[in-house]
Amino acid sequence: MRSSTVLSRRDLDFLLHEWLQVETLIKRPRYAEHSRETFDAVLDLAEEIATEHFAPHNRTADENEPRMVDGKVVLIPEVAAALKVFTEAGLMAGEFDEAYGGMQLPHTVGQAVFAWFKAANVGTSSYPFLTMANARLLLTHGSEEQKRTYVGPMVEGRWFGTMALSEPQAGSSLADITTRAEPQDDGTYRLTGNKMWISAGDHELTENIVHLVLAKIPGGPAGVKGISLFVVPKFLVDDDGSLGERNDVVLAGLNHKMGYRGTTNTLLNFGEGVHTPGGRAGAVGYLVGEPHRGLTYMFHMMNEARIGVGMGATVLGYTGFLHALEYAKTRTQGRPAAAKDPAAAPVRIIEHPDVRRMLLAAKSYAEGGLALGLYCARLVDEEQTAEDAADRARAHLLLDTLTPIAKAWPSQWGPVADDLAIQVHGGYGYTRDYPVEQFYRDNRLNPIHEGTNGIQALDLLGRKVVAQGGEGLRLLVEAIRATTARAAGTGWSDFAADLDAAVERLAAVTATLWGTGDAELALANASAYLEAAGHLVVAWLWLEQALATGTATSDFHEGKRVAARYFHRWELPKVHVQFDLLESLDRTVLDTAESWL
Amino acid sequence: MRSSTVLSRRDLDFLLHEWLQVETLIKRPRYAEHSRETFDAVLDLAEEIATEHFAPHNRTADENEPRMVDGKVVLIPEVAAALKVFTEAGLMAGEFDEAYGGMQLPHTVGQAVFAWFKAANVGTSSYPFLTMANARLLLTHGSEEQKRTYVGPMVEGRWFGTMALSEPQAGSSLADITTRAEPQDDGTYRLTGNKMWISAGDHELTENIVHLVLAKIPGGPAGVKGISLFVVPKFLVDDDGSLGERNDVVLAGLNHKMGYRGTTNTLLNFGEGVHTPGGRAGAVGYLVGEPHRGLTYMFHMMNEARIGVGMGATVLGYTGFLHALEYAKTRTQGRPAAAKDPAAAPVRIIEHPDVRRMLLAAKSYAEGGLALGLYCARLVDEEQTAEDAADRARAHLLLDTLTPIAKAWPSQWGPVADDLAIQVHGGYGYTRDYPVEQFYRDNRLNPIHEGTNGIQALDLLGRKVVAQGGEGLRLLVEAIRATTARAAGTGWSDFAADLDAAVERLAAVTATLWGTGDAELALANASAYLEAAGHLVVAWLWLEQALATGTATSDFHEGKRVAARYFHRWELPKVHVQFDLLESLDRTVLDTAESWL
Repeated sequence: MRSSTVLSRRDLDFLLHEWLQVETLIKRPRYAEHSRETFDAVLDLAEEIATEHFAPHNRTADENEPRMVDGKVVLIPEVAAALKVFTEAGLMAGEFDEAYGGMQLPHTVGQAVFAWFKAANVGTSSYPFLTMANARLLLTHGSEEQKRTYVGPMVEGRWFGTMALSEPQAGSSLADITTRAEPQDDGTYRLTGNKMWISAGDHELTENIVHLVLAKIPGGPAGVKGISLFVVPKFLVDDDGSLGERNDVVLAGLNHKMGYRGTTNTLLNFGEGVHTPGGRAGAVGYLVGEPHRGLTYMFHMMNEARIGVGMGATVLGYTGFLHALEYAKTRTQGRPAAAKDPAAAPVRIIEHPDVRRMLLAAKSYAEGGLALGLYCARLVDEEQTAEDAADRARAHLLLDTLTPIAKAWPSQWGPVADDLAIQVHGGYGYTRDYPVEQFYRDNRLNPIHEGTNGIQALDLLGRKVVAQGGEGLRLLVEAIRATTARAAGTGWSDFAADLDAAVERLAAVTATLWGTGDAELALANASAYLEAAGHLVVAWLWLEQALATGTATSDFHEGKRVAARYFHRWELPKVHVQFDLLESLDRTVLDTAESWL
Repeated sequence: MRSSTVLSRRDLDFLLHEWLQVETLIKRPRYAEHSRETFDAVLDLAEEIATEHFAPHNRTADENEPRMVDGKVVLIPEVAAALKVFTEAGLMAGEFDEAYGGMQLPHTVGQAVFAWFKAANVGTSSYPFLTMANARLLLTHGSEEQKRTYVGPMVEGRWFGTMALSEPQAGSSLADITTRAEPQDDGTYRLTGNKMWISAGDHELTENIVHLVLAKIPGGPAGVKGISLFVVPKFLVDDDGSLGERNDVVLAGLNHKMGYRGTTNTLLNFGEGVHTPGGRAGAVGYLVGEPHRGLTYMFHMMNEARIGVGMGATVLGYTGFLHALEYAKTRTQGRPAAAKDPAAAPVRIIEHPDVRRMLLAAKSYAEGGLALGLYCARLVDEEQTAEDAADRARAHLLLDTLTPIAKAWPSQWGPVADDLAIQVHGGYGYTRDYPVEQFYRDNRLNPIHEGTNGIQALDLLGRKVVAQGGEGLRLLVEAIRATTARAAGTGWSDFAADLDAAVERLAAVTATLWGTGDAELALANASAYLEAAGHLVVAWLWLEQALATGTATSDFHEGKRVAARYFHRWELPKVHVQFDLLESLDRTVLDTAESWL
């Protein structure tokens, strides 16, 4: 197996097969046509296309960010060329139904496949990422006509999709969007408003763009309960699927970011009268599902997107780690600290313990995050295709509970892996001659978008662990204890015991916080709760991986074991600092007056 | 007092006067001409010039990095203009002797003054930073002729200086430099070799550039004991101080960095025969001090530079914090987590506890780092001007012990303050329309240059805490215990008790590590030791600051107290995770085989 600095196929195979046993999914009707061979083939294809068509223009796209020329977005040509190869290989369709030309891949495999593209070039990969999420949302909540009209062209890669949620004054707080959707006599709507931070919001990559737009229908309830979801295509679509009039969606500006520059990020104006479909003002939109339920539908997609953001953060950290590992094996510098002979030849820097510490830490974050992302994907497969309804419900609730962690943990620690990757490179890592500084900049977006990590913390502590009487948390604790029970009597019993102790505290602290009956106090330190829960969950998945190595003695399996030991000894203990703080119901932050800052 | 987003004069006044009592220095002969009024005047001047001449082109310099045109460095004109104002105001001369036209400011005040420039524009401030360090080194170790020839023009700002240490193959490991210095009959040397990462290595800002270059005289001992230091001017200087022939120092290339772009960073070739002074090959160099003692002299400067790097990291975090604070006070978004009315108006984001948490954390890192930097500067003043020799020796040893912490701690946590500043800004913070992303990129250099943080860890644990039988560590512990003793019986006794417990462990862990008699094992986890020691030291300085607030009740003083509480409750406990690990003599990293990674 060739080695890659993009991502590790060996690790993916371990996670998919030695650990998550994805081949067992083949027994289910939806995946009956699949086999280990088909999974391998699509992973081979992904690696090849990501390596040969996505990775090579990652730096070029960073250096030549999208420009607006005569109202149109100009991208470097490599982006369109790579996406053409991607869609022609059928990869956009990977997880979709055969009816749409898809392969009906399990989501677990689909995530592993797509991880190659995010790792190779997160900017270019955003276009299909958003398109697939858009298509999946329409498949779940759209009308038959909407599915017929929009999903096919997106799965084929002829049209791309967006998610148009935020506005300049309403990012985290979608309740405050002001985009209006006026109902028309023909059942359509006319939208007016401005949308901000819209990735892939405009470009010439495809002949049409399908925007999914949140807007308020006048007269609806205030806040999040008055938000509806609309399909707003850039070009209206005639009954036969051909493109008609230009809709009134206008590119108003591009955002210039620190990283993630390959992805066009736009300010879009809807219904400003630049174009007037049918001679009337307003962008034409089609209601998805029922009025006022838009945020519910969107959250379905956003949960998926959040796990996807976590995966992106992980694999950006992962590729940083692999680059640093390669560098550390070749760069020579200095001698062992205890060496006495100044005339001895310099050693490769991987021989310095502190460099191995940095690599080991980065490995534990990158591989730990990847395990988390694929575990969540496995839950999606359970949720959607498990035979037993109770199993599906259990997977759904566990996934719901894990989602804020799956978004926030990798987006906190993936960037740390990239930070360590720079540090391993020394001064060279700080230059633009090496790729790690770009990974670091690209990855910095992840704690912000798809719900900031602070919002994930409120979601976890304020909603997820209390929903259904705490059933989600109970399921999580049960899952972790099942693992620690398996570890008893193995060489991992110490790790299991420490994990059990931490889980005990998670449950106790949750009870303490909500036992106050004071939501403001309970939620004040939610970020510490999220961080502790995240570290605990990843420690659990490291124990899972350690157990999955069994008695195998290859270097690869030893690597899994040493990273598990690292996480057990260096990382897991950190949760107690956070649990101590939470248990004390510390009011420092809550009681800080603005004027003191 | 006007408020600034560059730096806080109020905080500087607190640290200098309410805490460090710098006015007491006026009793010493060197500072006898000074007064609170002269200190205030120079700080006023620094704030004004930094704000009006340095800050405005910080982004411009980032967007227009130095270019090489026809072998010369082209900078945006604002750099030269700002530096002209700086030197004409006499700020380059601030700390120097009156004999050189200097103000003889205490170093503590000088550091506070210079902090304004680093915070406003770290790129432009590098030129005077390096020049001052260069001049100070020559004043300490240079001959009378070298002082006469080079120091005056540098203090006047007519010439700038550099430090040319690293080579492409020798960054951290200076023992491996290959630049040669051949002695000549006239007592000069001819240098040949390539120097990498030379900041301010070439430019047209001044008529001459004074390089301090490490090189090996053939026949000297191997390793660091065979390195000598040379003055190598860009233009040779005639006896009357006028410029003579071009020396053979040639700009070979510019490094393109992620941040810190305003500072020209160069690859310089010495003695490649492009110029041939006196018709002979080699760059003309003048030995500083004795042969083979170059690294000792350079370390004198590097210790100063390390504290300076820490100060730079701190104030870059500080300005990030101030920008985030201003943003949080004006940007509205969302409602309190416990609020029920969706029609209520959105609140300013500072009203969200998690935003206050981020601001409080950033404040504790930025102000804590500033306290550390100024405390070290105060030790420099003690070391140089205390009346009693024992006091000078004590200050010297304590400073020596603290130096790796003063470099590494702010360069770890200053970037975290900037990371939090981005997060407070949300998506806007990730764009180049706001300054915080640049602070984050700029600050990422600091854990790398002037000795990576991994090297600081080896310096602290491998040298500083064991030097002179552990006397440096004993002095540090004594200083901390003096503070905790003062805190007994105050409202800060809990903090003091926790700090005492942590200090106890620092001493015990140090003994345990070295008690193994196994240097490789003792040093394997040195980074954890450095991080714990750093957090402990900054916790101590937060207790110092808390005590210095006395009974004052202003918002400013409340702010100091709440940041001290934050550091006590949220940050100090982290050290125990590291002490536990160190105490266990964990071998995970040490025993990790390269092939497992």
